[in-house]
Amino acid sequence: MKKKKEREKNWFVDQDSENRWILHKIKKHIKSAQTRFQNVEIFDSFALGRIVVLDGKIQSAEKDEFIYHEALVHPAMIMHPHPGNILILGGGEGTTLREVLKHPSVRNVKMIDIDKEFIQFCKKYLKKWHQNSFKDKRVELIYDDAFSYMRSVREKFDVIIADISDPVEEGPAKLLYTEKFYSLIKKSLTNEGIFVTHATAIDSTVHTNISKKIFKMLAKIFPLTNIYYDYVPSFGTLWTFVISSFRHNPLKISPVVIDERLSKRRVKVLYYDSESHKRLFSLPKYIRNLLKN
Amino acid sequence: MKKKKEREKNWFVDQDSENRWILHKIKKHIKSAQTRFQNVEIFDSFALGRIVVLDGKIQSAEKDEFIYHEALVHPAMIMHPHPGNILILGGGEGTTLREVLKHPSVRNVKMIDIDKEFIQFCKKYLKKWHQNSFKDKRVELIYDDAFSYMRSVREKFDVIIADISDPVEEGPAKLLYTEKFYSLIKKSLTNEGIFVTHATAIDSTVHTNISKKIFKMLAKIFPLTNIYYDYVPSFGTLWTFVISSFRHNPLKISPVVIDERLSKRRVKVLYYDSESHKRLFSLPKYIRNLLKN
Amino acid sequence: MKKKKEREKNWFVDQDSENRWILHKIKKHIKSAQTRFQNVEIFDSFALGRIVVLDGKIQSAEKDEFIYHEALVHPAMIMHPHPGNILILGGGEGTTLREVLKHPSVRNVKMIDIDKEFIQFCKKYLKKWHQNSFKDKRVELIYDDAFSYMRSVREKFDVIIADISDPVEEGPAKLLYTEKFYSLIKKSLTNEGIFVTHATAIDSTVHTNISKKIFKMLAKIFPLTNIYYDYVPSFGTLWTFVISSFRHNPLKISPVVIDERLSKRRVKVLYYDSESHKRLFSLPKYIRNLLKN
Amino acid sequence: MKKKKEREKNWFVDQDSENRWILHKIKKHIKSAQTRFQNVEIFDSFALGRIVVLDGKIQSAEKDEFIYHEALVHPAMIMHPHPGNILILGGGEGTTLREVLKHPSVRNVKMIDIDKEFIQFCKKYLKKWHQNSFKDKRVELIYDDAFSYMRSVREKFDVIIADISDPVEEGPAKLLYTEKFYSLIKKSLTNEGIFVTHATAIDSTVHTNISKKIFKMLAKIFPLTNIYYDYVPSFGTLWTFVISSFRHNPLKISPVVIDERLSKRRVKVLYYDSESHKRLFSLPKYIRNLLKN
Repeated sequence: MKKKKEREKNWFVDQDSENRWILHKIKKHIKSAQTRFQNVEIFDSFALGRIVVLDGKIQSAEKDEFIYHEALVHPAMIMHPHPGNILILGGGEGTTLREVLKHPSVRNVKMIDIDKEFIQFCKKYLKKWHQNSFKDKRVELIYDDAFSYMRSVREKFDVIIADISDPVEEGPAKLLYTEKFYSLIKKSLTNEGIFVTHATAIDSTVHTNISKKIFKMLAKIFPLTNIYYDYVPSFGTLWTFVISSFRHNPLKISPVVIDERLSKRRVKVLYYDSESHKRLFSLPKYIRNLLKN
Repeated sequence: MKKKKEREKNWFVDQDSENRWILHKIKKHIKSAQTRFQNVEIFDSFALGRIVVLDGKIQSAEKDEFIYHEALVHPAMIMHPHPGNILILGGGEGTTLREVLKHPSVRNVKMIDIDKEFIQFCKKYLKKWHQNSFKDKRVELIYDDAFSYMRSVREKFDVIIADISDPVEEGPAKLLYTEKFYSLIKKSLTNEGIFVTHATAIDSTVHTNISKKIFKMLAKIFPLTNIYYDYVPSFGTLWTFVISSFRHNPLKISPVVIDERLSKRRVKVLYYDSESHKRLFSLPKYIRNLLKN
Repeated sequence: MKKKKEREKNWFVDQDSENRWILHKIKKHIKSAQTRFQNVEIFDSFALGRIVVLDGKIQSAEKDEFIYHEALVHPAMIMHPHPGNILILGGGEGTTLREVLKHPSVRNVKMIDIDKEFIQFCKKYLKKWHQNSFKDKRVELIYDDAFSYMRSVREKFDVIIADISDPVEEGPAKLLYTEKFYSLIKKSLTNEGIFVTHATAIDSTVHTNISKKIFKMLAKIFPLTNIYYDYVPSFGTLWTFVISSFRHNPLKISPVVIDERLSKRRVKVLYYDSESHKRLFSLPKYIRNLLKN
Repeated sequence: MKKKKEREKNWFVDQDSENRWILHKIKKHIKSAQTRFQNVEIFDSFALGRIVVLDGKIQSAEKDEFIYHEALVHPAMIMHPHPGNILILGGGEGTTLREVLKHPSVRNVKMIDIDKEFIQFCKKYLKKWHQNSFKDKRVELIYDDAFSYMRSVREKFDVIIADISDPVEEGPAKLLYTEKFYSLIKKSLTNEGIFVTHATAIDSTVHTNISKKIFKMLAKIFPLTNIYYDYVPSFGTLWTFVISSFRHNPLKISPVVIDERLSKRRVKVLYYDSESHKRLFSLPKYIRNLLKN
């Protein structure tokens, strides 16, 4: 008689490069669907809890989404002394929204996402992510293409956050990583305004270097542009962000100011504070070299 | 800009032994559930179409279930000159039932399966398997444990077919591969009656040899017992069957009789006929050696 | 403190199709090399013992090479009443040679292999395969391309055995699966002569059907041509062979003759005898359908 | 005709946890051996160049070994104003040695490694790692167990560096992560002396927290103890280090001093400078929480 076999045998294979794959053991399948815009897959993994996959790429995982989302949102929100009018591009899971709403000065948040069907799935299956942020009265959810939205919007924002899928050939987000698009964003910021975008993986062992391209484009358009990054376990690699503005330098904001603002605003954080800020913006020599010509 | 990634990245890992694994690329998840008796997983694979998995073990696949089910059912049904009253133990997918019903002499089929919930899934998701056989007026579906059913049944059957999950330690089917159980079966057969059971994998490279145990047990109980096998692609190995009776010898039935009965009964087959019969019952030397002491 | 990790973590991945992979756990690496003609990899696996891989494809495994090699060699050798002059094309491991030499009527064996370097590795690392057959006085080993050899040879052979790597695009063996090549072979056979070749995998779930092409080509050229097959565990699939001659029909040779010749010639076998012969040449209906138009 | 298969099909499977595996595609096997102390595996990967594996765990990779080794060596060496007498425990690849020797004040380095056979392999196969450091006249290589060496040594060192395999149950290094061992180290340091050790992975998604244990032990024994970390791609996770001394606080050394010392000493670095130092010692909130009770 054989031993009873283990029950779970399904694995998600993250082919992050052709030569290095990361396998996640699947506990339970939650949802597979093809929306008008992308392929959606939601499952529970043993190592990282629930995981959201779009077009084969992990978007976020229950156990470490706080790292990515706090690193994306809080530096910009804290560097701005009183962020009131906020624009989020993408961010379908509602987690960027959740972090933005933690700042009590926020009066309005517009969130632009192209994929209504995906947001329905997020509302239903990712409650720990959005924590009902979609129901907050300050939020206006607009189903539109970010590019066409930016072309027509007349408003000015204090903070604009781009939380859009990767700039993949043939992908819907391709236009959203161009100088044209960043110029539209610049026009829609107040003088105190800050723009932040995630900027894909950076890795000394991989040759395409999209982070650098995005950084260079934004550095050309804005007076002040910085790149920062941290390791996100579910992505299995280092993840960059680029932040741009007319007058706020992340290297010059005092640690005391960061921690005071966090404390006054009563922002509950797991990841971000003055020490994380210091880490995020201190780049080791080899990363600085990757960003040079 | 990176190339768009392939959409599908999930694999089912069939750890058929600790040292040899078979990976099936998954196209679409259909159903995952835990019934009272077992873990059920149904998905569409690229290589083999829809696949049904119970407790981590592949039960059957759309593209080759005909091999397993025809090899299980037709030798016994054809060797019997006029099978009328049939008993199926297990066989939740309804495919053994489908093959049995192809023989027009069949008047009644009793099918005993313990797992009502699993059969609901089969009815819903495996229509190509059962092809509505459950609705045939000759069929009586009884939700019961096969052992307790056999203990209480008073009827005699022309053919009894055991299509039960593997004899796994701690598994529900453990009692169903015992001398006690086979004696109950013997008592419930007519004088012309034939019993057939699948008898797990046989493999020169693997040491546990359950096929041999089952064969030896039945050879002790019945006057005539033969083992036969063929390769089932979705199982990734050779699969055995044991057939027992009081008077029907599968090595002596004439090829002409096999093909005549198939033709008269208008049984539509993809796999079985006199030539397949010859193959099934001709055992290479190394297989015969595996079955010796 | 963590538990000590298992020592062995390397796997050979047999991507036998894009959608179904077979993983073999590796115990020990023996040899990796690139010869002038092909990539060679020899390792010890847990499940199947030593395994030889050429250009990413498993050629044979210690634990089941007897199935492939006996099925390739003995039907032809036994059907011939007194095989004396033998030609082997390919067969670098020396195992086809080993089986041929078991027949005492054999006076000369010419073995033609293009890859001297690979044969050096076989001599050194595959002693269980060839068992020093290369040293037998009846053997002449010629390093040549099989096509050019066949074009120039003037001799006639009793049995010709093709044990050549698969007909792969861009591969060296491409020319060896053509009508032209088979006509050269026909010219080099005596009137009693028999030709046998392995003829790749046959699988109801895979669409390319090279077995059929080879079978059809040979059926056009020779008066008598039959296809036969069995399951080879290390190949993870069914493997075919095609046998052709002017006057020997494998379906008509009596089982008694097979077993008598085996016994008189004192051929020690693990796999082949009259019952295996019957199995090999009995094709289930779905296989017969795969071979039809 | 099939397309020619890709040549390389072997993968190294880093089962870094039961539920998340990292697969590295292997280009070429270099060496497999079992020494008296451990299992050694050296291969060339496509993603990370040559990789050294001990007892199933990746020790370092050609493309990113500079991150681990510079982070291990340079903070201690730079914080010390004139490191002259150095002790390295472990570090068989010779890379820690290579980094130490970059500091021109170094007069003597003792390197203690238990596994002579492994060091032979390193000398032969890892030339890019050690770059002939073993031949430097200042180096004395002693084959001994680190624990017994520390018990008997009478000398005092300026810097002691522990580059020893993980504290694994049953593993040889178990005794080297104990209070007893750290007390022996303390006794062998000068008043200006600094001790640094790698301290395994830290990961918010994994529960065993050995980093914390090591940090707590050393914090008990030394007046000043700090933990720091960075992401090492080939380890697929964040890697910690603990540094202890009587009077050198890594949080207080001025960036100007770091860069001046690097420059005066002409240490060629790819990773470490004042900005990397800042990053290494700035711990995000969730990491600080992992290190608390």
